[in-house]
Amino acid sequence: MLPVAVDAVGGDKAPGEIVTGARRAVDELGVPVVLVGPPDRIGDPHGLDVFACTEVIEMTDEPGGAVRRKKDSSLVRSAELVRDGKASAMLSAGNTGAAMASALLRMGRIKGVARPAIALPIPVSGTTPTVLLDVGANAEVQPEWLVQFAQMGQTYFQARFGSPGEAPRVGLLSIGEEDSKGTPLVKAAHELLRSTANVRFVGNVEGRDLMTDEVDVVVTDGFTGNVVLKTLEGGMRFVQRAILERLTATEELRKAFEVVWPALEPLAVELDPETYGGAMLLGVDGVCIISHGSSSARAIVNACGVAKEMVEADLVGHLRQAVATG
Amino acid sequence: MLPVAVDAVGGDKAPGEIVTGARRAVDELGVPVVLVGPPDRIGDPHGLDVFACTEVIEMTDEPGGAVRRKKDSSLVRSAELVRDGKASAMLSAGNTGAAMASALLRMGRIKGVARPAIALPIPVSGTTPTVLLDVGANAEVQPEWLVQFAQMGQTYFQARFGSPGEAPRVGLLSIGEEDSKGTPLVKAAHELLRSTANVRFVGNVEGRDLMTDEVDVVVTDGFTGNVVLKTLEGGMRFVQRAILERLTATEELRKAFEVVWPALEPLAVELDPETYGGAMLLGVDGVCIISHGSSSARAIVNACGVAKEMVEADLVGHLRQAVATG
Repeated sequence: MLPVAVDAVGGDKAPGEIVTGARRAVDELGVPVVLVGPPDRIGDPHGLDVFACTEVIEMTDEPGGAVRRKKDSSLVRSAELVRDGKASAMLSAGNTGAAMASALLRMGRIKGVARPAIALPIPVSGTTPTVLLDVGANAEVQPEWLVQFAQMGQTYFQARFGSPGEAPRVGLLSIGEEDSKGTPLVKAAHELLRSTANVRFVGNVEGRDLMTDEVDVVVTDGFTGNVVLKTLEGGMRFVQRAILERLTATEELRKAFEVVWPALEPLAVELDPETYGGAMLLGVDGVCIISHGSSSARAIVNACGVAKEMVEADLVGHLRQAVATG
Repeated sequence: MLPVAVDAVGGDKAPGEIVTGARRAVDELGVPVVLVGPPDRIGDPHGLDVFACTEVIEMTDEPGGAVRRKKDSSLVRSAELVRDGKASAMLSAGNTGAAMASALLRMGRIKGVARPAIALPIPVSGTTPTVLLDVGANAEVQPEWLVQFAQMGQTYFQARFGSPGEAPRVGLLSIGEEDSKGTPLVKAAHELLRSTANVRFVGNVEGRDLMTDEVDVVVTDGFTGNVVLKTLEGGMRFVQRAILERLTATEELRKAFEVVWPALEPLAVELDPETYGGAMLLGVDGVCIISHGSSSARAIVNACGVAKEMVEADLVGHLRQAVATG
């Protein structure tokens, strides 16, 4: 397998946690890796191969302009390595918009894809996660794009979490289960999805269905999807912090907490976004993983594992087919 | 004070929990109440006054048509009681769309209000909640409506949770804090809010800010708002259930759980939507509270308390002023 191009200088904890995570991915998961970035910014590469470049797109850079201007940046070079058949996938915890633009401009789109979308697994306790897309690539969408998101989302779900012979259930995010609810966009998309042969459409779903086993893939526009993702992230962080605060308030509670924590920890891990290794940009002609800006080494290890798995499963080939045969 | 008109036959737990809650509101909070509904559907009114009507708008009825057709329904009659100066407020846990349509058609709008909006307090641990609107009255909005939502939302926040002399902070829900992020609607609303004299606009906020002390009022369209509300509801229910499951799995855990539960229970109460007594329809010419369909007696008690408080605070008068002077 060709190495995964890891943007060593993108993310709040770069390069330290990124390089550590990449090293662990090699050692623990056997994922071949090449670090991309300016050697002086990377520092100690922990024995990993480095593809040297001279520029870095910062978190605060305006994505479109930065990608055009910084042609020798780690993000643009990572996408080129995939395009040129020198890397099997790219992975970055840096500027999301710039990662997207780099992949789009350098790898190009899969033939027939109107717009790539960012897909994110939302954890569901005790079963497979729910894949939500788009979580931010397209603030506004057309009904036809949502159909492609459905095709791509179910293909991704099948490749990562699916059972052979069982098509993932796809829902359309709305504000009521009735077909008649929602915006004109949602109603139009509902009609189209009903008549799309290769999508197992189960109808409209609501926000409360996301963390249940009612649905496998949920499609929505990138504005709503991003708000949902951030809301859940904030809500979970809030609850976790509030519980910790309360259960460490007195000596007696701290003792009881020591007893209950081993039972709660697996839940905390299950709900941790790092467990799933980040979001996947679907629709570009290559595997592109966009990890959370705050990614630690653990998130990078998991993301490298996902990259390997998706390359080996030929995700891009399956996406090509799903979009072409819809 | 005129009585609060309580729709005794609306909601999943009507009439039982509704009537019990109304009775408790009289006894515990001194809120005068009149039950509205067909006497045979209400059953035992627990000694409360009943305004008898003959029809009920069911949860499954199409709101617009039902309100036009069922002129002698509990919802339409409740709104008329407020309009005719025979009740101080209306309160229903029934069909949300029909409650809204009844209030709108019978009470009318406050002069100058383009569209009423539904405002809901989102709990924040340790401080005042964040008022989110619109959570479902208008699936699509105009930028100008969002400005009125801001004016109405801050007036409501001030009346219910505010500190004298301190204007509530108003944020616009978007997918990044930068002014340039979001849909054309959000960008246009951002510009308008910046130049609205009587709104303390703090800029764009994200979903993760909702459960923090960063902002007091968050405005958005009714599609996004409803999705956010249902997502949080689902997420919180999921976590609560998962924790309970895990902490009652063995005898040892159950014992530890008995120790930690008294510390966790206040948090569960804080996060329970019933604590805040439901959503408020802002912009109609009267106080109209829309409670969750699953409301128990406790939710109804709290909602009656909120109705009384908002009538006594002359919320509608303040809303009229806020919209007129913007």
